[in-house]
Amino acid sequence: MIGYEIFNKTLKNMELYPVFGNPGTTEIPMLEDIESDNYILTLHDSISVGMADGRAQLTRKPSMVNLHSILGIGNSMAFIYSAYVHKIPMIITAGEQDNRHIFYDPLLSGNINDMISKYTKYSFEIRSANDIERAVRRAYISSITPPFSLSFLGFPMDTLEENAEFRNLTRPEVNSDIVDDRAVREICNEINNSGNPAMILGYEADLYGGIWHAKEFSRKLGIPVFAEPFASRGPYDSSDPYYAGDLPPVAERINKSLSAYDLIIMVGGDINLYPYSHSDLLSGRRIIKIGLDISGKIGDSYFMNPATFLRESLKYLHERKGEKIPVRPEVNKNSQIQRVMLKIHENFPGYTIADESISASPFLRQIVGYNQDSYFIGKSGQIGWALPAAAGMATVNPKVLCVIGDGAFMYTSQTLWTIRNYNLPVKLIILDNHGYGILRKFQEVNYENTGKYLTFSIELKKVVDSFGIDVRKNDENMRDIEWLRSHDGPAALIIRVDKPYGYNLFKK
Amino acid sequence: MIGYEIFNKTLKNMELYPVFGNPGTTEIPMLEDIESDNYILTLHDSISVGMADGRAQLTRKPSMVNLHSILGIGNSMAFIYSAYVHKIPMIITAGEQDNRHIFYDPLLSGNINDMISKYTKYSFEIRSANDIERAVRRAYISSITPPFSLSFLGFPMDTLEENAEFRNLTRPEVNSDIVDDRAVREICNEINNSGNPAMILGYEADLYGGIWHAKEFSRKLGIPVFAEPFASRGPYDSSDPYYAGDLPPVAERINKSLSAYDLIIMVGGDINLYPYSHSDLLSGRRIIKIGLDISGKIGDSYFMNPATFLRESLKYLHERKGEKIPVRPEVNKNSQIQRVMLKIHENFPGYTIADESISASPFLRQIVGYNQDSYFIGKSGQIGWALPAAAGMATVNPKVLCVIGDGAFMYTSQTLWTIRNYNLPVKLIILDNHGYGILRKFQEVNYENTGKYLTFSIELKKVVDSFGIDVRKNDENMRDIEWLRSHDGPAALIIRVDKPYGYNLFKK
Amino acid sequence: MIGYEIFNKTLKNMELYPVFGNPGTTEIPMLEDIESDNYILTLHDSISVGMADGRAQLTRKPSMVNLHSILGIGNSMAFIYSAYVHKIPMIITAGEQDNRHIFYDPLLSGNINDMISKYTKYSFEIRSANDIERAVRRAYISSITPPFSLSFLGFPMDTLEENAEFRNLTRPEVNSDIVDDRAVREICNEINNSGNPAMILGYEADLYGGIWHAKEFSRKLGIPVFAEPFASRGPYDSSDPYYAGDLPPVAERINKSLSAYDLIIMVGGDINLYPYSHSDLLSGRRIIKIGLDISGKIGDSYFMNPATFLRESLKYLHERKGEKIPVRPEVNKNSQIQRVMLKIHENFPGYTIADESISASPFLRQIVGYNQDSYFIGKSGQIGWALPAAAGMATVNPKVLCVIGDGAFMYTSQTLWTIRNYNLPVKLIILDNHGYGILRKFQEVNYENTGKYLTFSIELKKVVDSFGIDVRKNDENMRDIEWLRSHDGPAALIIRVDKPYGYNLFKK
Amino acid sequence: MIGYEIFNKTLKNMELYPVFGNPGTTEIPMLEDIESDNYILTLHDSISVGMADGRAQLTRKPSMVNLHSILGIGNSMAFIYSAYVHKIPMIITAGEQDNRHIFYDPLLSGNINDMISKYTKYSFEIRSANDIERAVRRAYISSITPPFSLSFLGFPMDTLEENAEFRNLTRPEVNSDIVDDRAVREICNEINNSGNPAMILGYEADLYGGIWHAKEFSRKLGIPVFAEPFASRGPYDSSDPYYAGDLPPVAERINKSLSAYDLIIMVGGDINLYPYSHSDLLSGRRIIKIGLDISGKIGDSYFMNPATFLRESLKYLHERKGEKIPVRPEVNKNSQIQRVMLKIHENFPGYTIADESISASPFLRQIVGYNQDSYFIGKSGQIGWALPAAAGMATVNPKVLCVIGDGAFMYTSQTLWTIRNYNLPVKLIILDNHGYGILRKFQEVNYENTGKYLTFSIELKKVVDSFGIDVRKNDENMRDIEWLRSHDGPAALIIRVDKPYGYNLFKK
Repeated sequence: MIGYEIFNKTLKNMELYPVFGNPGTTEIPMLEDIESDNYILTLHDSISVGMADGRAQLTRKPSMVNLHSILGIGNSMAFIYSAYVHKIPMIITAGEQDNRHIFYDPLLSGNINDMISKYTKYSFEIRSANDIERAVRRAYISSITPPFSLSFLGFPMDTLEENAEFRNLTRPEVNSDIVDDRAVREICNEINNSGNPAMILGYEADLYGGIWHAKEFSRKLGIPVFAEPFASRGPYDSSDPYYAGDLPPVAERINKSLSAYDLIIMVGGDINLYPYSHSDLLSGRRIIKIGLDISGKIGDSYFMNPATFLRESLKYLHERKGEKIPVRPEVNKNSQIQRVMLKIHENFPGYTIADESISASPFLRQIVGYNQDSYFIGKSGQIGWALPAAAGMATVNPKVLCVIGDGAFMYTSQTLWTIRNYNLPVKLIILDNHGYGILRKFQEVNYENTGKYLTFSIELKKVVDSFGIDVRKNDENMRDIEWLRSHDGPAALIIRVDKPYGYNLFKK
Repeated sequence: MIGYEIFNKTLKNMELYPVFGNPGTTEIPMLEDIESDNYILTLHDSISVGMADGRAQLTRKPSMVNLHSILGIGNSMAFIYSAYVHKIPMIITAGEQDNRHIFYDPLLSGNINDMISKYTKYSFEIRSANDIERAVRRAYISSITPPFSLSFLGFPMDTLEENAEFRNLTRPEVNSDIVDDRAVREICNEINNSGNPAMILGYEADLYGGIWHAKEFSRKLGIPVFAEPFASRGPYDSSDPYYAGDLPPVAERINKSLSAYDLIIMVGGDINLYPYSHSDLLSGRRIIKIGLDISGKIGDSYFMNPATFLRESLKYLHERKGEKIPVRPEVNKNSQIQRVMLKIHENFPGYTIADESISASPFLRQIVGYNQDSYFIGKSGQIGWALPAAAGMATVNPKVLCVIGDGAFMYTSQTLWTIRNYNLPVKLIILDNHGYGILRKFQEVNYENTGKYLTFSIELKKVVDSFGIDVRKNDENMRDIEWLRSHDGPAALIIRVDKPYGYNLFKK
Repeated sequence: MIGYEIFNKTLKNMELYPVFGNPGTTEIPMLEDIESDNYILTLHDSISVGMADGRAQLTRKPSMVNLHSILGIGNSMAFIYSAYVHKIPMIITAGEQDNRHIFYDPLLSGNINDMISKYTKYSFEIRSANDIERAVRRAYISSITPPFSLSFLGFPMDTLEENAEFRNLTRPEVNSDIVDDRAVREICNEINNSGNPAMILGYEADLYGGIWHAKEFSRKLGIPVFAEPFASRGPYDSSDPYYAGDLPPVAERINKSLSAYDLIIMVGGDINLYPYSHSDLLSGRRIIKIGLDISGKIGDSYFMNPATFLRESLKYLHERKGEKIPVRPEVNKNSQIQRVMLKIHENFPGYTIADESISASPFLRQIVGYNQDSYFIGKSGQIGWALPAAAGMATVNPKVLCVIGDGAFMYTSQTLWTIRNYNLPVKLIILDNHGYGILRKFQEVNYENTGKYLTFSIELKKVVDSFGIDVRKNDENMRDIEWLRSHDGPAALIIRVDKPYGYNLFKK
Repeated sequence: MIGYEIFNKTLKNMELYPVFGNPGTTEIPMLEDIESDNYILTLHDSISVGMADGRAQLTRKPSMVNLHSILGIGNSMAFIYSAYVHKIPMIITAGEQDNRHIFYDPLLSGNINDMISKYTKYSFEIRSANDIERAVRRAYISSITPPFSLSFLGFPMDTLEENAEFRNLTRPEVNSDIVDDRAVREICNEINNSGNPAMILGYEADLYGGIWHAKEFSRKLGIPVFAEPFASRGPYDSSDPYYAGDLPPVAERINKSLSAYDLIIMVGGDINLYPYSHSDLLSGRRIIKIGLDISGKIGDSYFMNPATFLRESLKYLHERKGEKIPVRPEVNKNSQIQRVMLKIHENFPGYTIADESISASPFLRQIVGYNQDSYFIGKSGQIGWALPAAAGMATVNPKVLCVIGDGAFMYTSQTLWTIRNYNLPVKLIILDNHGYGILRKFQEVNYENTGKYLTFSIELKKVVDSFGIDVRKNDENMRDIEWLRSHDGPAALIIRVDKPYGYNLFKK
C-alpha cells in the first residue's frame, strides 16, 4: 500500500478525523488520500492548533493537526505552547522536504524537532512508509497516557510515496482511572481529623470528569470549594452552595482567602500566580495536592486521578457539621461590565464558553459561572486563543459562545473564515473597549504613564462582516442578544464597553 | 538611574528606534519610558518581526522588536526563523516574569531561550539593571558582525525597576568590508584562464551593496549573470544586458541552465532547491563561492565580503570577448498573469517590491525585474511575510509596493491596521486566484486529486476596507493602477486572476 | 540564614545525603556547610552520577549529585543519559558563576539548561537564596513522581551568600501504588479467556517491588515468564520454575521465542532491540502492556503500577492447568565462560551484581541468575557504568559484586579510588579478554575484517593495584574466588578468558 | 561503491586521517574500510576529542573524531564544549542505529543532534550513502570557515551498507586572511593620535599566525603587550622586551594593570574573567577589538583576521618614542613552585606545553613563557584536558611537554594507554600537591572551612607505571628532569610540591 493511503487509513482506524490544517507543498503528499470531509482548512496555521485544542478539551481524545513544515510549526508555537500548558492530548504532524535532497537545505527544510520537542512527550520523524501506521498509533498512545500531552510526527515527502504493508492496527486506549487506596485512606483520615479544611479544585477535576464527585465530597464535609487561580477550564459547578469562588492569582490575596483554613486539599489543580506580590505564599500551611499533574511547587503531593480520588474518598470521609462558606460577591448592577455579564448569564444557559475577555474574565467567571465542560480560557496567557478554540469546540458541540475583547479578537480574526466555511455554530460576543484594557489597567496601577500606545479603535463590525458572518453592534443593553443566541449558524455581537471597571488584580 | 530609563536612553544612543511591538503586562515596565513616537504597535506579535525584517533589509542595521513573553515569541517563531534565514540584523527583546516569584511558574513565565536560541547568535537574559545597557550594545554588535544575525534579550520585570549606573555608551559599528587580496588574485587568475565562465549572484550581493560592482565585473568579462534560485532580494540589475535570468530552484533545470559553462563563480549566494528532481546537482562542475555566508554545499568557498570581492577583482580581471548571453523569454501577452506583471512594471518604476505572489513570482521577477534594494521575498518559504515586510520597509522608504496572493494576504491581514494607523505609504496589489494556487499546481502536476480543499473565496475588498484602507477591485486590465500609485497614503488594488498559467516549476 | 546553610539544612531534611560529587570553584559556596561525612568525592564527575544511579536503583529514592558547572555536567552526560533511560529518581545540582558578572561569560559559565534539560523532568536555576529550600524540595517531588525521573538545579555562586528565611520544610513523599480496578478486571478476563498466554516482565517489576506478586501470578496461571530483552535490572526470580529466560533483543528471535503464545502480557517492561533483523516484530500478535513507563511501541497499554497490577490481578485470575514452560539451556561445562559464570554463581549467593561483562552478560544472567534487587546493567548501552554503579550500591548494601570486561573497566577505573577511600565493600571480577570482545564478535559476524584495532592488552593487575585495591589474577579456575568473597573490604580478581565463546546475538 | 568505502576514500581525499576514536557496534560499519594505521584508539571517548583538540590547535585544520553513538557523545560533552570554546576546527562523527528499526528506540539510539547541536556550526544526519561524501566535505568547509568551529555528522548503520556514486571530490580550503583596509587605517590613525596606548593580544593572534607581526607592531610603537586573561594558547613571545605579562582574569586587577593607558588595542582576544570582583570593568576606557571572534562584551569591534591586521597596520603606524614597559616580576627563588618552573624552563626549550598545573599555571606562564605554538591550556576551565591534548599534539610534534596537577591528571589518566600504544613522545610532569590545590586556595581565601574533602593522595607512580610508561618520582630538585627530556619515547616525572604558594587570584 502507498504511504499516503496508509496514512489515511490509519487516521480512520484511530478515529483521528477531522484533520485541522493549513497546507503547503510539503503536505500535499500526506493529504493525497484524505477526503475533503475529513479536513478543516484554516487560513493561518496557528488557528488549526487552536481549534484542535478546543476540540480536545471537549473530547478528551487526541485531535489531529497538520501543519506546513517548520514554517507552520513556527507560526503555531504559541498555540502549541498553550496546548502543552493545558495538558491536552494532541497529535501534531507536518510534512518535510524530500530526504533525497535534504542535504541541500532546500526551501521548507529546517529541523522541526529542534523547535517543538521541548513541548511534546513524543517526537519522531518518519523514516519510511513502514513507520507510518505504528508511529501514528504510538503518538496517539503517548498523548493519552496521563497526564495528557502532545506528540509530533514529521513526514518527509518521499516516505509517503513508498510502499509498505498496512497492518490495520486498532485504535488504542489508555486508562487514566488510577487510584491508590492506601493514600486515599491516609488523606481522608487527615481530613477527618482536621479542624478547618477547605478544598481547591483545578482543571483536572473537569478534564477527568470529577465535578459530580467533587460536589458529593464538599457536601459530605460541608467545606468551601475554591477554584484554582486561572484554571484552564471551570473546575466545579459554580452554582453549588459550597462554591467559594475563584482564587485570585496573587500570593498575598491567596493567603488572605485561605487564612481561615488549617488544611487545604488541592485536587487536580495548582497555585498559579500572575502579578508579583511580596507575600510568602501560604507559608507554614498544610497543603495536600492530589492529581496527575504534579508540580511539587507547594505542599505534599499524591499522584492519582483526581476524579477517582474524589469518588473513592467518599467511602472514608466522615460527614461533618461543615464550615461557613465564604459569601460570594453580589452582582453590582451599577457596573456596566457586570450588567453585560448578567445578560450573558441569562441568555446563554447550557453554553460552553471560550473566554478571552481578559480584564473582564473575573466578572465572567463570577457572574456567568461554569460547570462541567462549560468554561475554558487560555491558561498560558496567550492572546488570540479563544476564537479558534471556540471554533474547534463547535465541531463537536452546537452550543458554543466565545466572549472576547477587541484586542484579543484581532489576533486570530481569520478564524471567522473557517467558522463561516464549515458553518460552525459559534456565537461571538466581542467586548469592544478600544484597545488592550488589561495593559492600560496594569500601567495605571503601577505607573503614571497610562494608556500609551495601548488604545486603538477598529471597525470591528466591518472586520466581522468581511468574513461573511452576521454581525450586529449594540451598546451595553445588548438588545440583540436574543438574536445572537437564536440565530441560525454563526453570528457575532459587538458590545461597546467604555466604562472603566474595577478589575483590581494589580492593586498593590 | 532606573532600569527602564536606562533602556530607553540606550535605545536612543544605539539609534534603535522605532521599536516594533505588541506588548503584554510583562513588557509594561520596559516600555515605561519609551515615547509613543518611538513605538510602532502591531495587532499580532509576528507582524512586529515581519516589519523589523523589512526595515532591516533596507537599512542594513539592526531593527528592534519587543515581543510579549514566551507567547509573543511563540507567535512569531516563523517570522523569527525567516529573519534567521535572511541573515539580517535584528534585536529581539521580550519581557519576562518577575524573578522573585518565577519559582512558581507564574502566568507568562516559560523559558524563552529554549525556544529561540537556535536561531540567534547571541541570547541573554538580563540579570540586573546593571546589565541592560551593555547587553543591548552587545546584542547590537553581535547582530551586525558579518554574517548578520539575530540577537535575543530577555528582561525580567523586576530588573527594570532596579537602579544602576548609566554609562552613556556609544552606538557601535562593525565593519564588513573585508577582503583577501591573495584569494582575489587566485580567483581572477582562474577566471582569466577559464574557457567559459558564468556568474551566479545571490542576496549578499545586494545586502552588502555590490550590484554596481557586479555590473562592472560582468561587463569586463562579458559573461552571463544568473540570479541564485530563490534569492531573498534581487541580487542584480535585471535590466542589465548581461543578466541571464533567475536560476530555477530545481537541480535538473539548474544543470540545464548552466550546462554551457566550465567555471561558475557564485558571489554572495548559494544553490537553493525547492522541488526534488532526480538529477545530481552540477556534478563535476568547477564552482567557486565567494561570500560571508558560506554553506559548503557545493564547490570551493572563499570567505570575504562579496561586494568587496567584486570591486577588487576588477583590478585583476582581463577583459575578454565575452560569451553569448542566454536570451531571456519575451513577455507573453497572451498570458493574463504576464500582462498583469507588465502593467505593474510600467506603473511602479523605482518602487521597492515585497513579493508574495507565490506561483506568479517567477513572472514578477522576470517582467517587473529588480535592481538595488528593489525586490524582496521571504526566502524561508514562509507565507504571510510580504505584507508586514512591506510595512516595515515603508517606515524608511516612501515607495513600497506589495504584490501578494489572496491566500498569503490572509495570513497577516492585520498588518493593514498598523499601515493605516501610522499612515505607512504601502501600495498593495492582491492577486486573487481564489485560494492556494501554488498548491493546486503542485497537486495537479504530481497527483490526480486537484484542488481539494485548496480553493476558497474571500471578499477581499471588504477585508481590506474593514481596516480603513482605500481599496478597489479590478479585472486584469487594472484600470485603477494609476489611482493606486498616485493615491495619497496606503491603498490597495485587488486583481482577479482566474486564468491558469504555466508555472511549471514542478513539471517533471 | 545564609544560602549555604539553607542548602545543607534542606539536604538534611530531605535525607539527601550523601552528596556524590567532584567540585570546582563554582561549587565551593554550595559545599561550605556540608560535612565531610555527607560527601563522597569522586575523581571524575561522571563517576558521581554513576554512583548516584547505583544507589537510587537500590533505595528507590532520589540520590544527590553535585557537579562542577557546565564542565562537570558535560563530563557526565552519558551517565546522565543512562540514568534518564533507567528512569530512576536523581537530583543533579551544579554551581554556576556569579550572576553579577555573568554578562562577561566568565570562566565556568555556560548555559547548563541547554545541555541537560532534555533529560530532566524539572530543571531550574536558583534566582535567590529564597528559592533554595523550595526548589530542592520540588526537585525531590518531581523526581519521585512516577515514572521516576531526573531533576536539575543550578546554583549561581552569589545566591548561596545571600540571606533568606529557612522554612524547615519536611521531606516529601509521592505515592506510586496506583491501580485501575476496572482495567485489572478487563485484563484478567482476557487472560482467563485466552488459549495460550505468556508473560514478559520488565525492569519496573523489580523497581516497584513486584517480583513476589509476579511469582504468585505465574504460579496461578502456570504460564512462562520471560524477562524483557535487556532489562536494566533483573525483573524476576530466575530460579522460579516458571522462568523462561531472557528474551533476546532481536526481532526475529523474539518472534521465535513467543511464537507459541496467543496473548502476551508485558508487565513493567518493553520490547528492546539491539541488532537489526529484517523480521516484523510480533506482527499480528495480541500484546498487553501494563506499567508506568508507557512507550506505545507495540500492543495496547494500561497505565498503572505494574507491581500493584500483579497483586490485584490475583483476585480475578482463574487458576489454570498451565502451559509447558520452555526448557532453559543447561550450563555447557565445555565452555570456559560458562564455567566462570558457574563459579560466580556458586560463590556469591545473595549478592547484588552490577554487570558489564558485555558479550558474556547473557551467560551471567542465564547461569548466575537474579532475583529482587540483585542484578543491574546499564540499559542505555553505556560503557563504564557498572563499576561506579556498584560503588554507589555499596554505600547501602554490603554485598555487591561487579563483573566487568577489561575494556569496560578502563572507562571509569578511577572509581577504585573512591571505593578505596571510603572503603566501599565492592568485590570486582574483571574478565580480561584483551579488548572489546563484543565489537570483535560483531565485526566477525558481519564483516571479514575481524578484530581490527579492537584488541589490546593492559596490565590490569597493576592498574587495580595502583589504587590500593587488593587484587589477584587467576586463570579460569578462579582459585582465589573464595579469597575475593571473604576479603575484608574491596578486592578484585582478574580472570583471563581467552577462549572465544558462542555469543550469537548477531548471528543472522 | 559501498557507503563505508566512500567514507574511507573521502577521509583520504580530505586528509582527515588519523581518526581519533573509541568505537561501539554502531561504528563498526563506518570503520570497516579504515586501515589500522589511520585510526588512533582511546580507552574513553572523551580522550578522542581531547586528542583531536590538541592536534587541531597545531595543524589549524579539522581533526576527525569518531564517537560511539549518543553515549560516546555524552561521555565527551565537556571536551566538545571545550573545543567549542577554543574555536578550533573539528569534525565529530558518530554511528547511529539502523534506520529500519529506529522506530523501536533500539539500544544505542538517541537523538544526538539534541545533545550536540548547540556547540556545532553544522550538524547533519546522513540520509543515504549518496550524502556521505558531500556531507563530510561540507562539514570540513564549515569547520574551517572563520571563525573555526565544530561540525557533527551522524551515520546510521544502514547508510554505510548502501551503494552510491563516489565523486572523488577534492579537499576544500577556505581562506581566512581577510582584512579591511579602511578600518586598518582608521585604527592606525587613532593609535597615531593617542597618548598612551597598550595592546592586549589573545589566542587568535597565535591561532592565525600573527605573533611575528605583533612583535613588529609593538616594536614600532614601543608599547606594552599584555596577554588576554586566560588565553587558550600563548598569544605572544613572552621573551619579547615589550611583553608586559598576562592580564589576570579579575576585573579589579585588570583595571589596575591598564590604568595607565588611554587606548587599548585588543587583537585576537577578549576580556575573560574568573572570580567575581565588585569593580566595574574598564569603565569609560577606549577599547578597540580586532579579530574574527567578536563577542561585543566591551569596546568597539572590527571584524577581520587579527594577524592580517597586525601585518597591514605596519604600513600606517607612525613610529613613536614608546612607553615604559611594566616591569615583570623576577623569579622568586625562595618559592618552591617557582624553582620548579625555572627547571622546566631551563630543560625544555622549544617544547610545546599543554598546561593543566592549574593553581601553578600563572607561574608556568610567567617563568617558562611561551611563543608561537608553544603553550596551550583548556580555556573552558575543563579539568582533564591537557593530557589528551598533549597526546594529540604529539601526533604532529615530537616535542610536547604536559605539566599537570595530580587531581587533573586523574581525570583522563587512561590517555597514557594511547600514548604508550602509539608511542606518542609526550613528556609528562605531574605536580603532586595531594589534591585540588586551587579549590583549597579558593576555600581558604573566601571561607574558613579549608581543605574539606579536597585533599587526597594517590600513588601516582603506580598509576603511571600501570600503563607501561616509564616514570620517576622526584622532590622539587627534579634530578631526573634531564632523564625525562632525553628519554626515548613517552615518560613521566612526578614532583612533590608540598609548599603552599602565593597564588592570590582570589585575594579580595
